[in-house]
Amino acid sequence: MARIVMKFGGTSVGDIARIQNVARKVKAEVDRGNQVAVTVSAMSGVTNQLVDYCTQMSPLHDAREYDAVVATGEQVTSGLLAIALQELGVNARSWQGWQIPIITDDAHGKARIVDIKGEELIRRMERGEVPVVAGFQGVGPDNRTATLGRGGSDTTAVALAAGLKADRCDIYTDVDGVYTTDPRIVKTAKKLNKITYEEMLEMASLGAKVLQTRSVEMAMKHRVRVQVLSSFSDAPGTLVCDEDEIVEKELVSGIAYSRDEAKITLVSVSDQPGVAAGIFGPLADANINVDMIVQNVSRDGTTDLTFTVGKADLDRALNVIKEKLHVPYKTIMADKNVVKVSVIGVGMRSHAGVAQTMFKTLADKGINIQVISTSEIKVSVLIAEDYTELALRALHTAYNLDAA
Amino acid sequence: MARIVMKFGGTSVGDIARIQNVARKVKAEVDRGNQVAVTVSAMSGVTNQLVDYCTQMSPLHDAREYDAVVATGEQVTSGLLAIALQELGVNARSWQGWQIPIITDDAHGKARIVDIKGEELIRRMERGEVPVVAGFQGVGPDNRTATLGRGGSDTTAVALAAGLKADRCDIYTDVDGVYTTDPRIVKTAKKLNKITYEEMLEMASLGAKVLQTRSVEMAMKHRVRVQVLSSFSDAPGTLVCDEDEIVEKELVSGIAYSRDEAKITLVSVSDQPGVAAGIFGPLADANINVDMIVQNVSRDGTTDLTFTVGKADLDRALNVIKEKLHVPYKTIMADKNVVKVSVIGVGMRSHAGVAQTMFKTLADKGINIQVISTSEIKVSVLIAEDYTELALRALHTAYNLDAA
Repeated sequence: MARIVMKFGGTSVGDIARIQNVARKVKAEVDRGNQVAVTVSAMSGVTNQLVDYCTQMSPLHDAREYDAVVATGEQVTSGLLAIALQELGVNARSWQGWQIPIITDDAHGKARIVDIKGEELIRRMERGEVPVVAGFQGVGPDNRTATLGRGGSDTTAVALAAGLKADRCDIYTDVDGVYTTDPRIVKTAKKLNKITYEEMLEMASLGAKVLQTRSVEMAMKHRVRVQVLSSFSDAPGTLVCDEDEIVEKELVSGIAYSRDEAKITLVSVSDQPGVAAGIFGPLADANINVDMIVQNVSRDGTTDLTFTVGKADLDRALNVIKEKLHVPYKTIMADKNVVKVSVIGVGMRSHAGVAQTMFKTLADKGINIQVISTSEIKVSVLIAEDYTELALRALHTAYNLDAA
Repeated sequence: MARIVMKFGGTSVGDIARIQNVARKVKAEVDRGNQVAVTVSAMSGVTNQLVDYCTQMSPLHDAREYDAVVATGEQVTSGLLAIALQELGVNARSWQGWQIPIITDDAHGKARIVDIKGEELIRRMERGEVPVVAGFQGVGPDNRTATLGRGGSDTTAVALAAGLKADRCDIYTDVDGVYTTDPRIVKTAKKLNKITYEEMLEMASLGAKVLQTRSVEMAMKHRVRVQVLSSFSDAPGTLVCDEDEIVEKELVSGIAYSRDEAKITLVSVSDQPGVAAGIFGPLADANINVDMIVQNVSRDGTTDLTFTVGKADLDRALNVIKEKLHVPYKTIMADKNVVKVSVIGVGMRSHAGVAQTMFKTLADKGINIQVISTSEIKVSVLIAEDYTELALRALHTAYNLDAA
């Protein structure tokens, strides 16, 4: 017997027939003798409609009222799924954030879960009841409904699993797991059976949009085992878990990419103390996130400084530099046609040569590396966007990730 | 300065532009120096959609889950109206039933309001805040959302007015008040400035579908002054109030009609003790409501018994009589082509001749009266449906109700 939290996203509960399909999946888990709690997103399209209403009413609406409006989507799904489960003979009931309660902070519209009072739910699960919890929401210190921001239902699921001391949190989605790289680009990409929290965080934040970053952080913090799997098939998915649980560690687990960055180069910046602060201070003040940064050694008292920002922030970043920068420089160059490719694996902590394999593989294909940045478990390079597919395929083969 | 509860129905909040229109009406009331609380229905069509989802999922769904689903419609409107009011500079916030709380009994799907804890709302109104309350719902003893049944938003408004000790409850709807009779049939029908609770109850239950019967009963019980008016014009409406507040009482306030009844006649029923019980007992057991009843004096030990039931119940009623009736009778006759026309007015308590005027007027037009029933403040007759318009116009003139 295991205690399991199951989470179903918007496309999985997109209409009545799909909610009935979800009910069958939940019943199957109950029939296996498990204690089950479920959390659901709004039916696909519903949240967008509600957000649109708020925006039409006022572009700068009160986040507390936005929450009151937008949270109703998940409330509807939780009630409907409870009915569908009862129809199959499963003892189920819906729960809203204020009833459990799921306690959040007061950051309406992007609240964080502070605590989940799981005792009553555990008692009921032990008696065979299946709680169906409205995802994406809780109740704030002001006794008003607070939503967790986009993707918040994943966070609800993981927090619920932690609060209920569940053995596993199953996130049902429209993909059947985490792949070594994007299978739409690399046909030989393999589904991973297991991946560590740290690797999943890198994969998630780098554009493998399977799990919300915050939910992975929370899973790592509370050591919640998370399984990503498809609601439209019965195949096992990918388990996100502690490194200790993975016996055969691969050197490299996956290759991620992100087309969301743009490159800015300041040519011939005066190389004097405080330059970096003079550039990145104003960008930070303007709430612009800088990702990769490279500064070459000085020549003739000047240096070239390259960094990346989100593509959506590029114009704002250039304006900030032109208006606020008091450090002398010759010219600015900006380039949107770049992609960040990252090789990720906890195995590289103990193995040298991972970066070298990457550089050599790209060089062999004639791909120029523009910027490099590394962390303990990843190596990222910025290259011209045109080479995305070529680079991913070559690296996938170089690290022996291709499916047999 | 007055304290006012304003209620807006589904068509009044049917889209974003209409909610903005409602916000302007609320602001105008605030600008007049009044303390204002608002309650709203779901946007038109939304409740039907949610009910349909529940029915699709299971024709016999759990009423508690139905409530969780269906109550979201009003929650959306309350949040959107709060945003619209803030956009106009009005200090507003939305409230859901569980937050105030509006306490109901546990009859999910058709709950009754037991109590409204109005203290916090009154404190905030005194500071200039406008509460926007989701109509149609409260929280039951099981700490779950309970809805009040169809038309429940009117009841919420009246209960809120009682709980907040409001001077008036304004019910905004798509008609501009209560008329002496149906203006679609009688062009000279006049809007009434005032009408008593008792008269309004008769008008409402007889088919003048302006106010939900239950809300009028509640208004009468708590002596809440209710004004019915249009959300699409600025004209004053009709005030439903205590008799004492109406200085110039008309003998007859209005003429109502209902096409929802059907007539059943049992011919030559054996006239013996227990006959009525033998007939109406089985009908009551089958949950069939009987309205008018007439029994003639006995001839040769038999009598004719005529009564009316709802048109929708006619076939069921005939079956019950054929199967369950142990009293001897010759034949049954049934007639759906009937209309009940009622003359209503508290003035008739102290004036004779009201019924006589009705009978004479109908006789003059050659209209045969099939059944008569009377109460303290109304006289109802059953006539052939074809004569509906003729009867209404003739009676409207006979009681001097025609507009100048």
